[in-house]
Amino acid sequence: MSVTWQDVQAASDRIAGVAHRTPVLTSTTVDDRTGGQLFFKAENYQRMGAFKFRGAYNAISQFTPAQMQTGVIAFSSGNHAQAIALAAQLLGTKATIVMPQDAPPNKLAATRGYGAEVVLYDRYSQDREAIGDRIAAEQGGTVIPPYDHPHIIAGQGTAIKELIEEVGELDIVITSLGGGGLLAGTAIATHALCPAASIFGVEPAAGNDGQRSFRSGEIVTIQTPKTIADGAQTLHLGNITFPIIQEHVTDIVTATDDEILDAMRFLAYRMKTVVEPTGALPLAAIFNGQIDVRGKRVGIILSGGNVSDKILAIN
Amino acid sequence: MSVTWQDVQAASDRIAGVAHRTPVLTSTTVDDRTGGQLFFKAENYQRMGAFKFRGAYNAISQFTPAQMQTGVIAFSSGNHAQAIALAAQLLGTKATIVMPQDAPPNKLAATRGYGAEVVLYDRYSQDREAIGDRIAAEQGGTVIPPYDHPHIIAGQGTAIKELIEEVGELDIVITSLGGGGLLAGTAIATHALCPAASIFGVEPAAGNDGQRSFRSGEIVTIQTPKTIADGAQTLHLGNITFPIIQEHVTDIVTATDDEILDAMRFLAYRMKTVVEPTGALPLAAIFNGQIDVRGKRVGIILSGGNVSDKILAIN
Repeated sequence: MSVTWQDVQAASDRIAGVAHRTPVLTSTTVDDRTGGQLFFKAENYQRMGAFKFRGAYNAISQFTPAQMQTGVIAFSSGNHAQAIALAAQLLGTKATIVMPQDAPPNKLAATRGYGAEVVLYDRYSQDREAIGDRIAAEQGGTVIPPYDHPHIIAGQGTAIKELIEEVGELDIVITSLGGGGLLAGTAIATHALCPAASIFGVEPAAGNDGQRSFRSGEIVTIQTPKTIADGAQTLHLGNITFPIIQEHVTDIVTATDDEILDAMRFLAYRMKTVVEPTGALPLAAIFNGQIDVRGKRVGIILSGGNVSDKILAIN
Repeated sequence: MSVTWQDVQAASDRIAGVAHRTPVLTSTTVDDRTGGQLFFKAENYQRMGAFKFRGAYNAISQFTPAQMQTGVIAFSSGNHAQAIALAAQLLGTKATIVMPQDAPPNKLAATRGYGAEVVLYDRYSQDREAIGDRIAAEQGGTVIPPYDHPHIIAGQGTAIKELIEEVGELDIVITSLGGGGLLAGTAIATHALCPAASIFGVEPAAGNDGQRSFRSGEIVTIQTPKTIADGAQTLHLGNITFPIIQEHVTDIVTATDDEILDAMRFLAYRMKTVVEPTGALPLAAIFNGQIDVRGKRVGIILSGGNVSDKILAIN
């Protein structure tokens, strides 16, 4: 059930020409401020606005003919929903997305816009896994979870592979951390390409289950954390992602919401790029001093750009 | 005193390796919405955040040794100030920038950060041209105006030259319009490379002196217009820019502040890129129906990304 560097390479071949090979951003201002040489892999410019497309496409493109007939099922109010919907549309299979009925209207519209059937549920009275299981039983569809799946993890590892291929050896690699799909995939690819590199995950300070799990050696489960980083509001690491993170990752650190907003402002005002709160976590952890990048070549995944107009407002 | 295609080519050689060759952004969403094929030349990623660096560097790099000794003088509260300051620093001459004392603190700091001497004046009681003339008389420096100068115009024309070289023939070219430096330079280069292309300038509806000048055949001067597009708050076209615009431009159209904000939101939320209000004028004029791009290949200059935190807020 684990994931290998060969799996990441195979994922890279599957998504070639379909996923965007996203640009690498640099900034002399950020290098002057941090003392490092920073390379930002801009997954906010990925299709549907986040790295999640990589894993979703890699997973669905490995469906058997029987699975393609019955389609894919996902539970998500966020980027995974849109990623599965778009990948299913491109590959010609049906997507059913189970979303909370109070999900942001623009996310509902975007998911339906990719041709997915959206099934709404009440997150306070209904259990979404039960709904998904019922749909799967009735329709025979395949559930693709947002992070704890080898094909998802392998797909997410392709972003850092592209970055290292483009800019060369890195001393430090940093990603945001929710359930660990991006960090685990990144760790596998980084370990293969730059075995000496330090690898960091950054999660919201309000929901540091990953840090606690990493340091205690056991998966810690928390209540839904209160943070603007909606892409990292997961309750626990996965059974597949956790051992990979334990094996390859140097440390897991945190940033507060205020530190996230500071980093988002720097990215918008100085680097002219729009990231969602979760995407700003790595830079926030450099600015707040939790990761020392002085004198280092640093690869950062800007994980996504789907920010709400409540957080980034233009008036 | 006019400007030729050869001048643009020479400017291109002078700025090569110093100015950024900025990326070209595309978006299937914007193409679907407008019916055209749009290519955005992202000058918000230019050094100091706007196309202005091109003209400033082209102008100062043609200084005589005597001029280099006495330095450059500019009056500006905006991007021209920072462009002159940075270009002077890179070329090793002194810059004196005359700025209103109520200019935004971050713009004052940025201009000083590039090593310029900032001379403040009270815009309600003092005449900035008189101040500049006094400084020029005392120090012997060379005043470089923000748009009505052949070297400025030739430098600004290099952006569309790069765009056409990268994406090929265009049917329509659109820039924002303040004093006309960008539009005139763009018109000269477009006329040389795509002689059949239509060329449009877009200015704020509240300050349509350019449109009135273009349609009446005489330079119209207005009061400072009330608009969020601070880069296009000029009072009149220039004696050099106006005839070039008359000769090559198809039409000058307008967009309201609300339409500018709409276009900025699209660029931020959908294309994940931060532009200042002036930079959003061309897209605003497509969205509001003043420029019909259906079935056309369209080149757009995103002129800059230096937006204030009053207009784009992250909270």
